[in-house]
Amino acid sequence: MKRAVVLLSGGLDSATTLAICRQENFAAHALSFAYGQRHAVEVAAAKRVATTLGAHEHRVAEIDLRIFGGSALTSHTPVPKNRAVDKRQQQEIPVTYVPARNTIFLAYALAWAETIGALDIFIGVNAVDYSGYPDCRPEFIRAFEQLAQLGTRAGVEGGRFRIHAPLIAMSKAEIVRRGAQLGVDFALTHSCYDPKADGRACGECDSCRIRLQGFAEAGLADPIRYAEQ
Amino acid sequence: MKRAVVLLSGGLDSATTLAICRQENFAAHALSFAYGQRHAVEVAAAKRVATTLGAHEHRVAEIDLRIFGGSALTSHTPVPKNRAVDKRQQQEIPVTYVPARNTIFLAYALAWAETIGALDIFIGVNAVDYSGYPDCRPEFIRAFEQLAQLGTRAGVEGGRFRIHAPLIAMSKAEIVRRGAQLGVDFALTHSCYDPKADGRACGECDSCRIRLQGFAEAGLADPIRYAEQ
Repeated sequence: MKRAVVLLSGGLDSATTLAICRQENFAAHALSFAYGQRHAVEVAAAKRVATTLGAHEHRVAEIDLRIFGGSALTSHTPVPKNRAVDKRQQQEIPVTYVPARNTIFLAYALAWAETIGALDIFIGVNAVDYSGYPDCRPEFIRAFEQLAQLGTRAGVEGGRFRIHAPLIAMSKAEIVRRGAQLGVDFALTHSCYDPKADGRACGECDSCRIRLQGFAEAGLADPIRYAEQ
Repeated sequence: MKRAVVLLSGGLDSATTLAICRQENFAAHALSFAYGQRHAVEVAAAKRVATTLGAHEHRVAEIDLRIFGGSALTSHTPVPKNRAVDKRQQQEIPVTYVPARNTIFLAYALAWAETIGALDIFIGVNAVDYSGYPDCRPEFIRAFEQLAQLGTRAGVEGGRFRIHAPLIAMSKAEIVRRGAQLGVDFALTHSCYDPKADGRACGECDSCRIRLQGFAEAGLADPIRYAEQ
Protein backbone atom coordinates (compact mmCIF):
# COMPACT_ATOMS: atom_id res chain seq x y z
CA MET A 1 0.00 0.00 0.00
CA LYS A 2 1.51 3.32 -1.05
CA ARG A 3 1.91 5.92 1.65
CA ALA A 4 0.74 9.51 1.46
CA VAL A 5 0.95 12.45 3.84
CA VAL A 6 -2.37 14.28 4.20
CA LEU A 7 -2.60 17.77 5.68
CA LEU A 8 -5.57 17.67 8.01
CA SER A 9 -6.82 20.83 9.65
CA GLY A 10 -10.03 19.28 10.89
CA GLY A 11 -12.22 21.34 8.57
CA LEU A 12 -14.57 19.91 5.99
CA ASP A 13 -12.17 20.42 3.09
CA SER A 14 -9.29 18.50 4.64
CA ALA A 15 -11.66 15.78 5.93
CA THR A 16 -12.96 15.30 2.39
CA THR A 17 -9.38 15.29 1.11
CA LEU A 18 -8.47 12.54 3.57
CA ALA A 19 -11.50 10.54 2.40
CA ILE A 20 -10.35 10.94 -1.22
CA CYS A 21 -6.82 9.85 -0.31
CA ARG A 22 -8.18 6.74 1.39
CA GLN A 23 -10.46 6.00 -1.57
CA GLU A 24 -7.39 6.12 -3.82
CA ASN A 25 -5.95 3.37 -1.64
CA PHE A 26 -3.14 5.24 0.04
CA ALA A 27 -2.10 4.54 3.61
CA ALA A 28 -2.85 8.02 4.94
CA HIS A 29 -0.38 9.66 7.32
CA ALA A 30 -2.37 12.62 8.58
CA LEU A 31 -0.56 15.74 9.77
CA SER A 32 -2.07 18.59 11.78
CA PHE A 33 -0.56 21.69 13.31
CA ALA A 34 -0.98 23.42 16.61
CA TYR A 35 0.33 26.76 15.41
CA GLY A 36 -1.01 29.18 17.97
CA GLN A 37 -4.27 29.58 16.05
CA ARG A 38 -7.16 31.07 18.00
CA HIS A 39 -9.33 28.23 16.75
CA ALA A 40 -7.15 25.51 18.31
CA VAL A 41 -10.29 23.43 18.77
CA GLU A 42 -9.74 22.37 15.16
CA VAL A 43 -6.86 20.14 16.27
CA ALA A 44 -9.30 18.10 18.36
CA ALA A 45 -11.56 17.91 15.32
CA ALA A 46 -8.62 16.67 13.24
CA LYS A 47 -8.02 13.83 15.70
CA ARG A 48 -11.63 12.68 15.48
CA VAL A 49 -11.64 12.93 11.70
CA ALA A 50 -8.35 11.01 11.34
CA THR A 51 -9.68 8.16 13.47
CA THR A 52 -13.08 7.83 11.83
CA LEU A 53 -11.72 8.05 8.28
CA GLY A 54 -9.13 5.36 8.90
CA ALA A 55 -5.88 7.32 8.77
CA HIS A 56 -2.90 5.02 9.22
CA GLU A 57 -1.50 7.45 11.78
CA HIS A 58 -1.98 11.05 12.85
CA ARG A 59 0.67 13.43 14.15
CA VAL A 60 0.33 16.96 15.44
CA ALA A 61 3.30 19.25 14.90
CA GLU A 62 3.60 22.06 17.41
CA ILE A 63 4.84 25.15 15.65
CA ASP A 64 4.47 28.66 16.91
CA LEU A 65 3.58 31.02 14.11
CA ARG A 66 2.74 33.67 16.71
CA ILE A 67 6.43 34.59 16.82
CA PHE A 68 5.79 36.43 13.55
CA GLY A 69 2.17 37.58 14.05
CA GLY A 70 0.77 39.17 10.91
CA SER A 71 -2.65 37.46 10.85
CA ALA A 72 -5.96 37.78 12.62
CA LEU A 73 -5.80 34.02 13.19
CA THR A 74 -2.60 34.24 15.23
CA SER A 75 -2.86 37.67 16.86
CA HIS A 76 -5.41 39.91 18.52
CA THR A 77 -6.63 41.49 15.28
CA PRO A 78 -10.41 40.92 15.18
CA VAL A 79 -11.71 38.26 12.77
CA PRO A 80 -13.98 39.96 10.18
CA LYS A 81 -17.64 39.03 10.52
CA ASN A 82 -20.64 38.96 8.21
CA ARG A 83 -18.73 39.87 5.07
CA ALA A 84 -20.30 39.07 1.75
CA VAL A 85 -18.79 35.86 0.40
CA ASP A 86 -19.37 36.52 -3.27
CA LYS A 87 -16.40 35.89 -5.47
CA ARG A 88 -15.70 39.43 -6.55
CA GLN A 89 -14.91 40.53 -3.01
CA GLN A 90 -12.47 37.67 -2.63
CA GLN A 91 -9.97 39.39 -4.89
CA GLU A 92 -8.76 41.12 -1.77
CA ILE A 93 -6.62 39.06 0.62
CA PRO A 94 -8.28 39.16 4.06
CA VAL A 95 -6.61 39.69 7.45
CA THR A 96 -7.18 36.04 8.29
CA TYR A 97 -4.46 35.17 5.75
CA VAL A 98 -1.54 33.67 7.67
CA PRO A 99 1.75 34.59 5.98
CA ALA A 100 3.26 31.63 4.17
CA ARG A 101 1.13 29.17 6.12
CA ASN A 102 0.61 26.61 3.38
CA THR A 103 4.29 26.88 2.44
CA ILE A 104 5.18 25.96 6.01
CA PHE A 105 2.56 23.20 6.21
CA LEU A 106 3.69 21.66 2.92
CA ALA A 107 7.33 21.90 3.99
CA TYR A 108 6.54 19.85 7.09
CA ALA A 109 4.50 17.40 5.03
CA LEU A 110 7.48 17.04 2.73
CA ALA A 111 9.80 16.36 5.65
CA TRP A 112 7.53 13.61 6.90
CA ALA A 113 7.01 12.23 3.39
CA GLU A 114 10.76 11.91 2.92
CA THR A 115 11.14 10.20 6.25
CA ILE A 116 8.50 7.53 5.54
CA GLY A 117 9.35 7.12 1.86
CA ALA A 118 6.16 8.73 0.54
CA LEU A 119 6.06 10.69 -2.70
CA ASP A 120 2.43 11.78 -2.42
CA ILE A 121 1.11 14.69 -0.37
CA PHE A 122 -2.56 15.64 -0.18
CA ILE A 123 -3.75 19.15 0.65
CA GLY A 124 -7.35 20.38 0.69
CA VAL A 125 -6.81 23.80 -0.84
CA ASN A 126 -9.51 25.20 -2.99
CA ALA A 127 -9.25 28.03 -5.49
CA VAL A 128 -12.96 28.59 -6.12
CA ASP A 129 -14.86 29.25 -2.89
CA TYR A 130 -11.66 29.96 -1.02
CA SER A 131 -10.99 33.12 0.90
CA GLY A 132 -8.64 34.85 -1.50
CA TYR A 133 -5.41 33.33 -0.16
CA PRO A 134 -2.49 33.30 -2.63
CA ASP A 135 -1.24 29.95 -1.34
CA CYS A 136 -4.44 28.17 -2.36
CA ARG A 137 -3.95 28.61 -6.10
CA PRO A 138 -2.99 25.91 -8.64
CA GLU A 139 0.19 27.75 -9.65
CA PHE A 140 1.34 27.70 -6.02
CA ILE A 141 0.72 23.96 -5.78
CA ARG A 142 2.66 23.32 -8.99
CA ALA A 143 5.54 25.47 -7.70
CA PHE A 144 5.69 23.45 -4.49
CA GLU A 145 5.68 20.20 -6.46
CA GLN A 146 8.70 21.46 -8.37
CA LEU A 147 10.39 22.48 -5.12
CA ALA A 148 9.77 19.04 -3.61
CA GLN A 149 11.29 17.43 -6.65
CA LEU A 150 14.47 19.50 -6.42
CA GLY A 151 14.89 19.77 -2.66
CA THR A 152 14.71 16.17 -1.52
CA ARG A 153 16.79 13.04 -1.51
CA ALA A 154 13.95 11.07 -3.12
CA GLY A 155 13.51 13.67 -5.85
CA VAL A 156 17.22 13.71 -6.66
CA GLU A 157 17.26 9.92 -6.72
CA GLY A 158 14.52 9.80 -9.34
CA GLY A 159 11.26 9.67 -7.35
CA ARG A 160 8.41 11.76 -8.69
CA PHE A 161 6.66 13.89 -6.07
CA ARG A 162 2.99 14.68 -6.44
CA ILE A 163 1.12 17.32 -4.50
CA HIS A 164 -2.52 16.27 -4.76
CA ALA A 165 -5.03 19.07 -4.42
CA PRO A 166 -8.21 17.21 -5.36
CA LEU A 167 -10.58 20.00 -4.28
CA ILE A 168 -8.77 22.81 -6.01
CA ALA A 169 -11.32 23.32 -8.79
CA MET A 170 -14.47 22.41 -6.82
CA SER A 171 -17.08 24.75 -5.41
CA LYS A 172 -17.82 24.42 -1.70
CA ALA A 173 -21.13 22.78 -2.59
CA GLU A 174 -19.30 20.19 -4.70
CA ILE A 175 -16.91 19.51 -1.84
CA VAL A 176 -19.84 18.98 0.54
CA ARG A 177 -21.48 16.56 -1.91
CA ARG A 178 -18.25 14.67 -2.53
CA GLY A 179 -17.52 14.40 1.18
CA ALA A 180 -21.06 13.17 1.84
CA GLN A 181 -20.70 10.51 -0.90
CA LEU A 182 -17.47 9.30 0.67
CA GLY A 183 -19.07 9.03 4.09
CA VAL A 184 -17.37 11.96 5.80
CA ASP A 185 -19.15 12.71 9.07
CA PHE A 186 -19.28 16.49 8.87
CA ALA A 187 -20.50 16.65 12.46
CA LEU A 188 -16.89 15.92 13.47
CA THR A 189 -15.36 18.75 11.45
CA HIS A 190 -14.64 22.29 12.54
CA SER A 191 -14.33 25.28 10.22
CA CYS A 192 -14.95 28.42 12.31
CA TYR A 193 -12.10 30.93 12.70
CA ASP A 194 -13.52 32.38 15.91
CA PRO A 195 -15.40 29.72 17.86
CA LYS A 196 -17.19 30.37 21.15
CA ALA A 197 -15.65 29.12 24.39
CA ASP A 198 -17.81 25.97 24.22
CA GLY A 199 -16.52 25.20 20.71
CA ARG A 200 -19.64 26.23 18.79
CA ALA A 201 -19.03 27.93 15.44
CA CYS A 202 -19.73 31.66 15.27
CA GLY A 203 -21.66 31.48 11.99
CA GLU A 204 -20.37 34.91 10.99
CA CYS A 205 -16.71 34.63 9.96
CA ASP A 206 -15.73 34.03 6.32
CA SER A 207 -15.10 30.36 6.99
CA CYS A 208 -18.53 29.78 8.59
CA ARG A 209 -20.34 31.75 5.90
CA ILE A 210 -18.62 29.94 3.03
CA ARG A 211 -19.34 26.61 4.74
CA LEU A 212 -23.01 27.43 5.36
CA GLN A 213 -23.44 28.62 1.79
CA GLY A 214 -21.81 25.41 0.53
CA PHE A 215 -24.21 23.21 2.49
CA ALA A 216 -27.17 25.32 1.34
CA GLU A 217 -26.12 25.06 -2.31
CA ALA A 218 -25.56 21.30 -1.93
CA GLY A 219 -29.06 20.97 -0.48
CA LEU A 220 -27.71 19.35 2.68
CA ALA A 221 -28.00 20.28 6.34
CA ASP A 222 -24.82 21.25 8.17
CA PRO A 223 -24.81 19.00 11.25
CA ILE A 224 -22.54 21.15 13.44
CA ARG A 225 -23.88 23.51 16.12
CA TYR A 226 -23.74 27.24 15.57
CA ALA A 227 -24.01 29.93 18.22
CA GLU A 228 -27.42 31.58 18.38
CA GLN A 229 -27.25 34.75 16.31
CA MET B 1 16.73 50.96 4.83
CA LYS B 2 15.39 47.85 3.14
CA ARG B 3 14.69 44.87 5.35
CA ALA B 4 15.90 41.35 4.76
CA VAL B 5 15.45 38.09 6.63
CA VAL B 6 18.71 36.18 7.11
CA LEU B 7 18.79 32.52 8.06
CA LEU B 8 21.46 32.24 10.72
CA SER B 9 22.53 28.85 12.01
CA GLY B 10 25.56 30.18 13.84
CA GLY B 11 28.03 28.47 11.53
CA LEU B 12 30.66 30.23 9.48
CA ASP B 13 28.61 30.18 6.26
CA SER B 14 25.56 31.88 7.73
CA ALA B 15 27.73 34.35 9.69
CA THR B 16 29.45 35.35 6.44
CA THR B 17 26.05 35.58 4.75
CA LEU B 18 24.82 37.94 7.47
CA ALA B 19 27.94 40.07 7.00
CA ILE B 20 27.25 40.23 3.23
CA CYS B 21 23.63 41.19 3.87
CA ARG B 22 24.75 44.00 6.18
CA GLN B 23 27.35 45.16 3.66
CA GLU B 24 24.59 45.40 1.06
CA ASN B 25 22.87 47.81 3.45
CA PHE B 26 19.90 45.74 4.48
CA ALA B 27 18.42 45.90 7.95
CA ALA B 28 19.04 42.26 8.82
CA HIS B 29 16.33 40.30 10.62
CA ALA B 30 18.17 37.17 11.65
CA LEU B 31 16.27 33.93 12.14
CA SER B 32 17.54 30.79 13.86
CA PHE B 33 15.89 27.51 14.74
CA ALA B 34 15.92 25.30 17.76
CA TYR B 35 14.78 22.20 15.92
CA GLY B 36 15.82 19.41 18.23
CA GLN B 37 19.27 19.28 16.67
CA ARG B 38 21.91 17.48 18.70
CA HIS B 39 24.20 20.44 18.18
CA ALA B 40 21.83 22.93 19.83
CA VAL B 41 24.89 24.86 20.98
CA GLU B 42 24.77 26.46 17.53
CA VAL B 43 21.76 28.53 18.62
CA ALA B 44 23.92 30.22 21.27
CA ALA B 45 26.54 30.84 18.58
CA ALA B 46 23.85 32.40 16.37
CA LYS B 47 22.94 34.85 19.13
CA ARG B 48 26.54 36.00 19.53
CA VAL B 49 27.01 36.31 15.78
CA ALA B 50 23.77 38.30 15.33
CA THR B 51 24.81 40.78 17.99
CA THR B 52 28.37 41.32 16.84
CA LEU B 53 27.45 41.64 13.16
CA GLY B 54 24.78 44.24 13.86
CA ALA B 55 21.58 42.35 13.06
CA HIS B 56 18.55 44.59 13.48
CA GLU B 57 16.89 41.81 15.46
CA HIS B 58 17.26 38.09 16.04
CA ARG B 59 14.50 35.57 16.64
CA VAL B 60 14.72 31.88 17.42
CA ALA B 61 11.84 29.73 16.20
CA GLU B 62 11.26 26.57 18.20
CA ILE B 63 10.27 23.79 15.85
CA ASP B 64 10.52 20.15 16.61
CA LEU B 65 11.76 18.21 13.62
CA ARG B 66 12.28 15.20 15.89
CA ILE B 67 8.62 14.30 15.41
CA PHE B 68 9.69 12.97 12.01
CA GLY B 69 13.19 11.71 12.76
CA GLY B 70 14.98 10.62 9.63
CA SER B 71 18.36 12.27 10.21
CA ALA B 72 21.44 11.66 12.29
CA LEU B 73 21.17 15.30 13.39
CA THR B 74 17.75 14.80 14.96
CA SER B 75 17.85 11.17 16.08
CA HIS B 76 20.21 8.70 17.70
CA THR B 77 21.81 7.59 14.42
CA PRO B 78 25.56 8.14 14.85
CA VAL B 79 27.12 11.11 13.05
CA PRO B 80 29.69 9.81 10.53
CA LYS B 81 33.29 10.60 11.42
CA ASN B 82 36.52 11.00 9.50
CA ARG B 83 35.01 10.61 6.07
CA ALA B 84 36.96 11.87 3.11
CA VAL B 85 35.62 15.27 2.10
CA ASP B 86 36.64 15.16 -1.53
CA LYS B 87 33.96 16.14 -3.96
CA ARG B 88 33.45 12.81 -5.65
CA GLN B 89 32.23 11.20 -2.44
CA GLN B 90 29.74 13.98 -1.94
CA GLN B 91 27.52 12.65 -4.69
CA GLU B 92 25.98 10.49 -2.01
CA ILE B 93 23.56 12.17 0.39
CA PRO B 94 24.80 11.55 3.95
CA VAL B 95 22.75 10.52 7.00
CA THR B 96 23.19 14.01 8.44
CA TYR B 97 20.80 15.26 5.76
CA VAL B 98 17.65 16.50 7.53
CA PRO B 99 14.58 15.87 5.33
CA ALA B 100 13.27 19.09 3.81
CA ARG B 101 15.14 21.21 6.36
CA ASN B 102 15.96 24.14 4.11
CA THR B 103 12.42 24.06 2.70
CA ILE B 104 11.11 24.43 6.24
CA PHE B 105 13.67 27.11 7.16
CA LEU B 106 12.92 29.14 4.03
CA ALA B 107 9.17 28.77 4.61
CA TYR B 108 9.57 30.33 8.06
CA ALA B 109 11.82 33.05 6.65
CA LEU B 110 9.14 33.78 4.08
CA ALA B 111 6.45 34.02 6.78
CA TRP B 112 8.56 36.55 8.68
CA ALA B 113 9.48 38.43 5.50
CA GLU B 114 5.80 38.84 4.64
CA THR B 115 5.01 40.03 8.13
CA ILE B 116 7.70 42.75 8.14
CA GLY B 117 7.29 43.72 4.49
CA ALA B 118 10.63 42.30 3.34
CA LEU B 119 11.12 40.83 -0.14
CA ASP B 120 14.71 39.69 0.42
CA ILE B 121 15.81 36.50 2.15
CA PHE B 122 19.44 35.49 2.63
CA ILE B 123 20.57 31.89 3.06
CA GLY B 124 24.13 30.64 3.34
CA VAL B 125 23.80 27.49 1.27
CA ASN B 126 26.74 26.38 -0.74
CA ALA B 127 26.82 23.97 -3.65
CA VAL B 128 30.58 23.47 -3.90
CA ASP B 129 32.07 22.33 -0.59
CA TYR B 130 28.67 21.39 0.73
CA SER B 131 27.83 17.98 2.08
CA GLY B 132 25.77 16.63 -0.82
CA TYR B 133 22.41 17.96 0.34
CA PRO B 134 19.79 18.38 -2.42
CA ASP B 135 18.38 21.52 -0.81
CA CYS B 136 21.67 23.40 -1.15
CA ARG B 137 21.62 23.53 -4.95
CA PRO B 138 20.96 26.58 -7.16
CA GLU B 139 17.93 24.95 -8.80
CA PHE B 140 16.37 24.47 -5.37
CA ILE B 141 16.92 28.13 -4.50
CA ARG B 142 15.36 29.26 -7.78
CA ALA B 143 12.38 26.97 -7.20
CA PHE B 144 11.83 28.49 -3.76
CA GLU B 145 12.04 32.00 -5.19
CA GLN B 146 9.28 31.06 -7.61
CA LEU B 147 7.22 29.58 -4.78
CA ALA B 148 7.62 32.76 -2.72
CA GLN B 149 6.45 34.82 -5.63
CA LEU B 150 3.31 32.75 -6.09
CA GLY B 151 2.44 31.92 -2.49
CA THR B 152 2.45 35.31 -0.81
CA ARG B 153 0.35 38.41 -0.58
CA ALA B 154 3.33 40.60 -1.53
CA GLY B 155 4.13 38.43 -4.55
CA VAL B 156 0.54 38.53 -5.80
CA GLU B 157 0.48 42.28 -5.29
CA GLY B 158 3.50 42.77 -7.52
CA GLY B 159 6.49 42.59 -5.16
CA ARG B 160 9.51 40.70 -6.44
CA PHE B 161 10.97 38.20 -3.99
CA ARG B 162 14.65 37.43 -4.02
CA ILE B 163 16.31 34.51 -2.30
CA HIS B 164 19.95 35.56 -1.98
CA ALA B 165 22.42 32.70 -1.75
CA PRO B 166 25.67 34.66 -2.02
CA LEU B 167 27.91 31.71 -1.09
CA ILE B 168 26.35 29.22 -3.42
CA ALA B 169 29.23 29.11 -5.92
CA MET B 170 32.11 29.67 -3.47
CA SER B 171 34.55 27.13 -2.13
CA LYS B 172 34.83 26.90 1.65
CA ALA B 173 38.22 28.61 1.40
CA GLU B 174 36.63 31.51 -0.49
CA ILE B 175 33.91 31.79 2.14
CA VAL B 176 36.51 31.91 4.90
CA ARG B 177 38.43 34.65 3.06
CA ARG B 178 35.28 36.64 2.33
CA GLY B 179 34.10 36.40 5.93
CA ALA B 180 37.53 37.46 7.19
CA GLN B 181 37.49 40.49 4.85
CA LEU B 182 34.07 41.49 6.20
CA GLY B 183 35.25 41.24 9.79
CA VAL B 184 33.39 38.09 10.81
CA ASP B 185 34.76 36.84 14.12
CA PHE B 186 34.96 33.13 13.37
CA ALA B 187 35.73 32.43 17.02
CA LEU B 188 32.02 33.05 17.68
CA THR B 189 30.78 30.55 15.11
CA HIS B 190 29.93 26.90 15.56
CA SER B 191 29.94 24.28 12.79
CA CYS B 192 30.31 20.87 14.44
CA TYR B 193 27.47 18.35 14.12
CA ASP B 194 28.50 16.44 17.20
CA PRO B 195 30.10 18.75 19.76
CA LYS B 196 31.51 17.59 23.09
CA ALA B 197 29.57 18.36 26.28
CA ASP B 198 31.72 21.47 26.84
CA GLY B 199 30.84 22.78 23.35
CA ARG B 200 34.18 22.00 21.68
CA ALA B 201 34.00 20.84 18.08
CA CYS B 202 34.74 17.16 17.42
CA GLY B 203 37.04 17.83 14.46
CA GLU B 204 35.91 14.61 12.82
CA CYS B 205 32.40 15.07 11.41
CA ASP B 206 31.87 16.22 7.81
CA SER B 207 31.14 19.75 8.94
CA CYS B 208 34.33 20.05 11.00
CA ARG B 209 36.45 18.48 8.29
CA ILE B 210 35.11 20.73 5.54
CA ARG B 211 35.60 23.75 7.81
CA LEU B 212 39.16 22.80 8.73
CA GLN B 213 40.04 22.17 5.11
CA GLY B 214 38.53 25.55 4.16
CA PHE B 215 40.67 27.40 6.70
CA ALA B 216 43.74 25.46 5.61
CA GLU B 217 43.16 26.27 1.94
CA ALA B 218 42.51 29.92 2.81
CA GLY B 219 45.81 30.02 4.69
CA LEU B 220 44.10 31.16 7.88
CA ALA B 221 43.93 29.69 11.36
CA ASP B 222 40.56 28.47 12.64
CA PRO B 223 40.17 30.25 15.99
CA ILE B 224 37.68 27.79 17.56
CA ARG B 225 38.68 25.07 19.98
CA TYR B 226 38.65 21.45 18.88
CA ALA B 227 38.60 18.39 21.10
CA GLU B 228 41.99 16.72 21.43
CA GLN B 229 42.12 13.93 18.87
